[in-house]
Amino acid sequence: MDDPSAVFENGNSHQSDESNVLDIYPLSCYYFGSRGSASFKNETISDRVLRMKANYDAYGMRNCVAAVIVVELFKHPHLLLLQVQNSIYKLPGGRLRPGESDIECLKRKLSSKLSAGEDGRGPEWEIGECLGIWWRPNFEALLYPYLPPNIKRPKECTKLFLVKLPASRRFIVPKNFRLLAIPLCQLHENEETYGPIISGVPQLLSKFTFNIVEP
Amino acid sequence: MDDPSAVFENGNSHQSDESNVLDIYPLSCYYFGSRGSASFKNETISDRVLRMKANYDAYGMRNCVAAVIVVELFKHPHLLLLQVQNSIYKLPGGRLRPGESDIECLKRKLSSKLSAGEDGRGPEWEIGECLGIWWRPNFEALLYPYLPPNIKRPKECTKLFLVKLPASRRFIVPKNFRLLAIPLCQLHENEETYGPIISGVPQLLSKFTFNIVEP
Repeated sequence: MDDPSAVFENGNSHQSDESNVLDIYPLSCYYFGSRGSASFKNETISDRVLRMKANYDAYGMRNCVAAVIVVELFKHPHLLLLQVQNSIYKLPGGRLRPGESDIECLKRKLSSKLSAGEDGRGPEWEIGECLGIWWRPNFEALLYPYLPPNIKRPKECTKLFLVKLPASRRFIVPKNFRLLAIPLCQLHENEETYGPIISGVPQLLSKFTFNIVEP
Repeated sequence: MDDPSAVFENGNSHQSDESNVLDIYPLSCYYFGSRGSASFKNETISDRVLRMKANYDAYGMRNCVAAVIVVELFKHPHLLLLQVQNSIYKLPGGRLRPGESDIECLKRKLSSKLSAGEDGRGPEWEIGECLGIWWRPNFEALLYPYLPPNIKRPKECTKLFLVKLPASRRFIVPKNFRLLAIPLCQLHENEETYGPIISGVPQLLSKFTFNIVEP
């Protein structure tokens, strides 16, 4: 049963934009299991730069997509993050194959990283709007939320998409990854732990009114 | 004449979302003038807290709106900011009157702060989508891009709206304010100078492809 009081009132409800209301469900609505380990590139920074350069020469700019998935816990929105090696946090997602669209890639990556495999068992992933885009101007640099001045050939473009969860679903995660729900209030201004992209997600979500749907 | 090459290609143009293309015009398309000084509350922090408490008791939560206005300079998007006393940067905007809508208020504030007055001379302001919402949990606190946990009665809600400029317009600014165009690359991660809201604007704009329209 929906609880209308759980919609945060913003003092201007008569003009609220319906598209900016996001239904979220309690963490307890979801089942979390694990399966065999998935490959994870455990490489040095210099090896990573060499690999990125070789891929750039072969395929051009690296296009990536990442998912912003929100659940409710303790009446506060939480972001789902993958953790590897007890330290690195990542949004679920990955790199586009040649010719693949953003949406196709994100669905494939969500199925391979959060479900039993790429066969897409379970409900289809509902990909929402693009929330933000980050650019890597050169191989050694971090990403920026704009194309830096005078950069004509960026090396990477990563797009963040909102992914809307259904009222129930199974998450099956490779056992060398942990799937965590981190409160937005812990991510904000915590770039040191989560990096610039993840720590900025609360801002990208701030326009939404979260409607907590109790099962 | 439009220059199609000025649209930043993102490698997925076949699926680009038309609503995420933002036309921006060179700074030189606009006329900037000044007029008599406007009132500016030059008060201590404790005076400000007292005033906010009195207003909260009388009117309830403070609702504010702010404008995100972008122009082009040196092929890079720049944000228009008001500067007071050579140090404080503000997005154009202000507080809603009782019963006023966000859009009405923002148009009124833009006319009073960036035009000759409230009579609305000059082209109408085109208010676009809400980009972000910030909350102040209590009088002494900063704002956050979410309603912090366990806060039932926030004291302020500030909404950021995209404002789309026409190809030409006059800006007439009170002479105790300066209207500045600051490059997005200078705002990003520069919270010390610009505060958390303004320094986060590049992220809120990152989903847009800027189409630089040359006159």
